[in-house]
Amino acid sequence: MTTTEFSSADIKERINEANKKTIDIMMAGQPVWIGDSPAIDVVPGMTKNTILHAGPPIEWDRMCNPMRKGILGAVVFEGLARNLSEAKELVESNEIVLSPCHHHSAVGGMTGITSASMPVHIVRNDTYGNVAYCLPHEGSSFKALGWGTNDDETIQQIRWMRDELSPVLNTGVKAIGGINIKDIIGRAIQMGDEAHSRCTAGTLLIARKLAPYLVSSDIQKDMLARVLDFIQRTDIFALHLFMAAGRSMIDPAKNIPYSSVVTTLCRNGVEFGIKVSALGDQWFTGPAGKIRTSYFSPQWNDSVAGKDIGDSAIMEVIGLGGLIHAAAPAHEHLLKGTFESAMSKTKEAYSITVGEHNSWFLPALDFRGVPIGIDIRKVVQTGTPPLIDTATPHIDGGFIGSGESRAPLEAFEKALREFSKTI
Amino acid sequence: MTTTEFSSADIKERINEANKKTIDIMMAGQPVWIGDSPAIDVVPGMTKNTILHAGPPIEWDRMCNPMRKGILGAVVFEGLARNLSEAKELVESNEIVLSPCHHHSAVGGMTGITSASMPVHIVRNDTYGNVAYCLPHEGSSFKALGWGTNDDETIQQIRWMRDELSPVLNTGVKAIGGINIKDIIGRAIQMGDEAHSRCTAGTLLIARKLAPYLVSSDIQKDMLARVLDFIQRTDIFALHLFMAAGRSMIDPAKNIPYSSVVTTLCRNGVEFGIKVSALGDQWFTGPAGKIRTSYFSPQWNDSVAGKDIGDSAIMEVIGLGGLIHAAAPAHEHLLKGTFESAMSKTKEAYSITVGEHNSWFLPALDFRGVPIGIDIRKVVQTGTPPLIDTATPHIDGGFIGSGESRAPLEAFEKALREFSKTI
Repeated sequence: MTTTEFSSADIKERINEANKKTIDIMMAGQPVWIGDSPAIDVVPGMTKNTILHAGPPIEWDRMCNPMRKGILGAVVFEGLARNLSEAKELVESNEIVLSPCHHHSAVGGMTGITSASMPVHIVRNDTYGNVAYCLPHEGSSFKALGWGTNDDETIQQIRWMRDELSPVLNTGVKAIGGINIKDIIGRAIQMGDEAHSRCTAGTLLIARKLAPYLVSSDIQKDMLARVLDFIQRTDIFALHLFMAAGRSMIDPAKNIPYSSVVTTLCRNGVEFGIKVSALGDQWFTGPAGKIRTSYFSPQWNDSVAGKDIGDSAIMEVIGLGGLIHAAAPAHEHLLKGTFESAMSKTKEAYSITVGEHNSWFLPALDFRGVPIGIDIRKVVQTGTPPLIDTATPHIDGGFIGSGESRAPLEAFEKALREFSKTI
Repeated sequence: MTTTEFSSADIKERINEANKKTIDIMMAGQPVWIGDSPAIDVVPGMTKNTILHAGPPIEWDRMCNPMRKGILGAVVFEGLARNLSEAKELVESNEIVLSPCHHHSAVGGMTGITSASMPVHIVRNDTYGNVAYCLPHEGSSFKALGWGTNDDETIQQIRWMRDELSPVLNTGVKAIGGINIKDIIGRAIQMGDEAHSRCTAGTLLIARKLAPYLVSSDIQKDMLARVLDFIQRTDIFALHLFMAAGRSMIDPAKNIPYSSVVTTLCRNGVEFGIKVSALGDQWFTGPAGKIRTSYFSPQWNDSVAGKDIGDSAIMEVIGLGGLIHAAAPAHEHLLKGTFESAMSKTKEAYSITVGEHNSWFLPALDFRGVPIGIDIRKVVQTGTPPLIDTATPHIDGGFIGSGESRAPLEAFEKALREFSKTI
């Protein structure tokens, strides 16, 4: 039999049942933001000289420039080196442990750089008890370790996040008793978010929920004002909560025998990595794609654009982002598309997924559930890898545009070959 | 010539030019929320024994029950009577001046009851210098003077608005230096609001803008928390700011010779009143329509529903609400419609309007401008009065559903007859 055909009706049935079970588990999750904390205190396997990065595993020598720069910035931020060149020596003499976020119940935006004393959002899946982590978004400016810059301004922002942003958020979230992120996503996608590149409504919903609790706290007024002002300026703030929520919803759906559903989509700027439920923690990779980008300034173009990068494609794994442009016509417009092209992309997503979500609905499709559960069989059969919404980094670091990419078909083909051996 | 035909090419041209000028003025307006204040201090013609109501002029004897109850509640709130029965005696002995909001540069939601010491939002049209007013929304609960209840709980809420809500909002808005409501509307209609019955995104955008300034103020924490919590619970909060903004954008577009564009749509629960630019302050009325309602509870149905009421149809005058269901599929769904029916309604709105807005765009129509400027000629020619989004009051007061109604064709026919005499 070929790798895309499972001729025994019995086996087909078992796969379909396993896939149904996989998306049922994803949909049953109740991800609750329970607080923020320094990574070292909560992230499994984090040590003082560990730096996490986005995507599948990759050695220093093969990393893209923005990821390397983010790592060097983190080494300086942690006080492990006095400057970037000392940091480079340290990394090159193997004094720093580099490890994918995905190996630590975490996810990271773009370069995904996360180190010991950086703060993380903590999201617990109340249905299954597992927890996931993500560094708060660094803001929508050009610079961020996530975008691959590492100058003083970049590092100062992370310090502010550590010293003010996350402690304030932690106080507010704890006073509320947790914020259910699944509910926030459900409302946000009825308000023009596709919950990946566009999280404006989600950010507003979270900000409004936090505000009454924050003002009742004992936090200094000026500190509170800076935090609320940061959220006010950062429409994408909610994304990193959505990512941690996504990760927490997916983890219990891993390792289900016979399930051909994708449980990870992520990129390190060089390679795109995927995982499949039945295949546990095995990585299947292909080249990180070129991003079709709407640049923020005419000074930038494809010749200075980095390749697809970041763990944020976890959003597509749970049926959002590039799978639901029909929810976010304003985002499709930014990408120079039309409402019709947004609808086509969403229709395409239904053709490669297992089912429709029972709590997240698309108003423009008369409240049809979002397409959930990317099936590697369908991807290979149709030759249609999922569309991924993403930001575009400058090859030397920096945030230069918003765009979309395709996961490489090659990774799905490799996974399907392995999958067919196991059944 | 018939009333719907203006056979002279010259006259047609003059009307078209006047209509273009009318919508240009409406679109050029920059409505800025500059603060809140007691009505007596700012609303033209307000006196201690004046009570404003929604819709065209109407005498006490002909008023609907919710409006009467709202008025009696306001008399008690102002301390002009000790109780509701004393209040009734006072009104019936003509000691209280009853006047439409529309005669005082104001607008009012549902019953529109507004009295001297009640607070109002102040919105200034920075382009033309004129100012408009609206009582803040009383909240989404069953009771409100606006919904026609008048018990202690209802009146206590107005006291809280006077003593806490509006002073706090005033402090925040003044600290910001004003909030441009046109910008907020522009963003909100890209986030699922039709900016009349659904103002969720607008409310969130305003709340996020206010929060950093409010926390920096000297306002007591508990007071601030109550205000932010009220906004958190009141998705429709922004509507009354949108209404004042609408009024401020329309007033400079009145009295344009040859203009057949509608400048007022409002209802008092008995009659629906319209005004037309070229016809200045003349009212043209027809019966207030029945509302096609989605009731909030099965205990309610058409037999206990009041008729169409409120000045909020000012939103349709500026191209929003019932004219743009394509922007708010979630609202259309609440009304048991489909995305297709939302698109049809919006398409219909383009057939009775003069032009397309140059700053407010509909994502689902590839950023086509909203239909702006209802032309009485087109309404009569097509037999299609505008669709109005509205809330439904109980006949004895109270908020029981959300729905839509049609302005009565009769009012447009009367206006067109008068218009044809003047040209």
